[in-house]
Amino acid sequence: MIPFSCFTIFRFKKLTCRILVLLLLISFSSHSQNNILVFQSDFGLKDGAVSAMKGVAMGVSPNLKLFDVTHEIPAYNIWEASYRLVQTAPYWPAGTVFVSVCDPGVGTERKSVVLLTRSGHYFVTPDNGTLTLVAEQLGIQEVREIDEVKNRRKNSNESYTFHGRDVYAFTGARLASKTITYAEVGQKLPNQVVTIDYQKPSFEQGKVKGTIPILDIQYGNVWTDIDKKLFNQLGIKIGEDIRVQIFNEKAKVYEGTVKYVNTFGEVEGGVDVGYFNSLLNFSLGINMANFSEKYKVFSGNTWSIVLSKK
Amino acid sequence: MIPFSCFTIFRFKKLTCRILVLLLLISFSSHSQNNILVFQSDFGLKDGAVSAMKGVAMGVSPNLKLFDVTHEIPAYNIWEASYRLVQTAPYWPAGTVFVSVCDPGVGTERKSVVLLTRSGHYFVTPDNGTLTLVAEQLGIQEVREIDEVKNRRKNSNESYTFHGRDVYAFTGARLASKTITYAEVGQKLPNQVVTIDYQKPSFEQGKVKGTIPILDIQYGNVWTDIDKKLFNQLGIKIGEDIRVQIFNEKAKVYEGTVKYVNTFGEVEGGVDVGYFNSLLNFSLGINMANFSEKYKVFSGNTWSIVLSKK
Amino acid sequence: MIPFSCFTIFRFKKLTCRILVLLLLISFSSHSQNNILVFQSDFGLKDGAVSAMKGVAMGVSPNLKLFDVTHEIPAYNIWEASYRLVQTAPYWPAGTVFVSVCDPGVGTERKSVVLLTRSGHYFVTPDNGTLTLVAEQLGIQEVREIDEVKNRRKNSNESYTFHGRDVYAFTGARLASKTITYAEVGQKLPNQVVTIDYQKPSFEQGKVKGTIPILDIQYGNVWTDIDKKLFNQLGIKIGEDIRVQIFNEKAKVYEGTVKYVNTFGEVEGGVDVGYFNSLLNFSLGINMANFSEKYKVFSGNTWSIVLSKK
Repeated sequence: MIPFSCFTIFRFKKLTCRILVLLLLISFSSHSQNNILVFQSDFGLKDGAVSAMKGVAMGVSPNLKLFDVTHEIPAYNIWEASYRLVQTAPYWPAGTVFVSVCDPGVGTERKSVVLLTRSGHYFVTPDNGTLTLVAEQLGIQEVREIDEVKNRRKNSNESYTFHGRDVYAFTGARLASKTITYAEVGQKLPNQVVTIDYQKPSFEQGKVKGTIPILDIQYGNVWTDIDKKLFNQLGIKIGEDIRVQIFNEKAKVYEGTVKYVNTFGEVEGGVDVGYFNSLLNFSLGINMANFSEKYKVFSGNTWSIVLSKK
Repeated sequence: MIPFSCFTIFRFKKLTCRILVLLLLISFSSHSQNNILVFQSDFGLKDGAVSAMKGVAMGVSPNLKLFDVTHEIPAYNIWEASYRLVQTAPYWPAGTVFVSVCDPGVGTERKSVVLLTRSGHYFVTPDNGTLTLVAEQLGIQEVREIDEVKNRRKNSNESYTFHGRDVYAFTGARLASKTITYAEVGQKLPNQVVTIDYQKPSFEQGKVKGTIPILDIQYGNVWTDIDKKLFNQLGIKIGEDIRVQIFNEKAKVYEGTVKYVNTFGEVEGGVDVGYFNSLLNFSLGINMANFSEKYKVFSGNTWSIVLSKK
Repeated sequence: MIPFSCFTIFRFKKLTCRILVLLLLISFSSHSQNNILVFQSDFGLKDGAVSAMKGVAMGVSPNLKLFDVTHEIPAYNIWEASYRLVQTAPYWPAGTVFVSVCDPGVGTERKSVVLLTRSGHYFVTPDNGTLTLVAEQLGIQEVREIDEVKNRRKNSNESYTFHGRDVYAFTGARLASKTITYAEVGQKLPNQVVTIDYQKPSFEQGKVKGTIPILDIQYGNVWTDIDKKLFNQLGIKIGEDIRVQIFNEKAKVYEGTVKYVNTFGEVEGGVDVGYFNSLLNFSLGINMANFSEKYKVFSGNTWSIVLSKK
């Protein structure tokens, strides 16, 4: 009757055998869950905050596998928190649970939610704009509000200021370890999240317009949200020049010409280039140098770019 | 005789069966240990020192789960090492083994010890003051001196300067993986550790006095060791003002008034506030800004604070 | 016939039994593999690049154990990437797979390889000099070129610029999880790698000469590649003075005298010392201070040192 029913000589042996098989099944099913929990925050790594969150998670289940996106989100920068999630989540297996804590409004009325995207990833976070880009690009499957009566670390009610540890890490760990189901997170909300406004990419009158959502800070490259299909409407080929204008709000910060390349290795050190980055978005850089520092170009939803053929 | 003794048709089959059952039991017991080893140091993450410690641990047992408190303890700052341990350890499950290496006296006469606290956590470290706050707040259950003849990485005797890798990581990994028992660490010492002096919190003549053990550096908030019970003796209510004086040694560094709030979200950006942090200690901050930088207030056992009703 | 063949009462039970045994063996063999994958890069931890690599690895196999050497290799500094690998790899168990991505020539003609050293460690990296020191010190067992047709993340062909994620992390994860064998990485190459030139340590006319490959940056100590055997030819004893000259290219940057000690604890704060570091190489430091900053001594293949008896 059960798959491995066997060894049926005596009744008590049959029972023993079933227990044995059950244990094996448990062992295998625990292996087949991915149990992956990935943290992001603006806490930095210099104090013990991230470690406290991970300790809480391991207290929920020692079988969890804990990882990080980054904890160097600039303090209170929800836009960047949103960007880092969409930059990395698609590369993690479906079923992965992300906990993102960039929470300038901690203790106020913003909702605590868990978003399930159409790609099968879970995002545990305050609903303060952090979900803008994953909702848009990975799609909203379902949104649930965290029921903080049930999903809150024991004896943590006196603390007003560390929801990351007491609510988000705790709930994320319970969800990733299947201690609770997604439905047990709390009540279903309408399929929408709080979003941050920004200029969407477009093509008009021979010009491509877009936003500079983020810098590739380690190298000083400038990333846009302009994809290849949009860029190709300009009809510029590898090796040709691209005319570039960059604005912060209404102020023009940069105007110049860059060479369109597949890879930095194609030009000498010091040459300004345009290329498609690893997310397949149009980007600006200088081979062996720092475009952002040289031209004082930074990023965020207020920074826009205009491209045209020279 | 053994729990799952079964399948007794022939003698050799009985033996086979017992082996099978034994293997299952081993498999399950290895799953039920928490196997958690948490590292802290003043090494930073820019070189290979932390990685070498973790490599040694994985060589002891690949079943260990390795985590970090922080490796950004300022060089030689034993006080801060002590603080980070007490800030995080209580959130990790009992049985967790911590290895803390902030060791200005490496190679000198300080003892290498493993403290077991009453909370069931283990701390592997030089006994140089690092244990001050965990001993005080989590309680001393037992202290053992590491026997470096038995508990030292093979062929590591020629190196005088990396006990973190050769003694502490190695011993911590052997303890966390149950390769050795706690008793096998080395001989039992008296129930005491080396401690750093600091001003204890107190209430006298309408004033609460305390220490500034640490900054919440990511946000520039100033944390004290004054808890809610002590603070409440001032009779100040949420929304009221608190008079604050801060000293480094005898020199007055700050004098001012802050608003007592539950959470930063209750005030506008730029307002100075007093609140209880996630460890439930009185703290100072500025909504959306940096109190420490603005008023040049820092931390350590020499920094004290006086609170009174306005 | 198979080791645990047993329970042979009925034929279908025999089969069931074999399945059971097979599952057990699989379970144990997956436990006995070390499954360790260690990452290094010049990406930093402020963006999502490292996380994307780890997500790809966990997508290959959730049983992998992921660790890091460091991601703070200075941008494009292949020499330092090479040094960090040789500093840490020997402390990890044989069978460990390292993925190192410091790749200024990404997208150009440099080969992507996996080196197996005589010590049993695997290194997945562009062959651009990164392997200089591990090849020299751990020995070349075999070198294979990554076949990017087979060993490349699905649908990643449009991206020219993130081989770290799409080729190196993916191949390293497949190798560490035994999804592919070493032979399946790609074709065998001759037993050689691309190397960076540097001055080898030597003893001539009463002077020991060597290179300053790296700083112990956290403390500002200056590390050389001069080992104890070479140093001992100077006949200097613990407690005696050592005459030191340091050059960058041909320019003399430092000339002075340091005291030869076993450990910093032997001298007062502020004293310049020479000692053997945890890798058993001659090093310079100041007790409780920063030698590198004080004397403007830095590191790399252009920095050389001369030691003699005073």
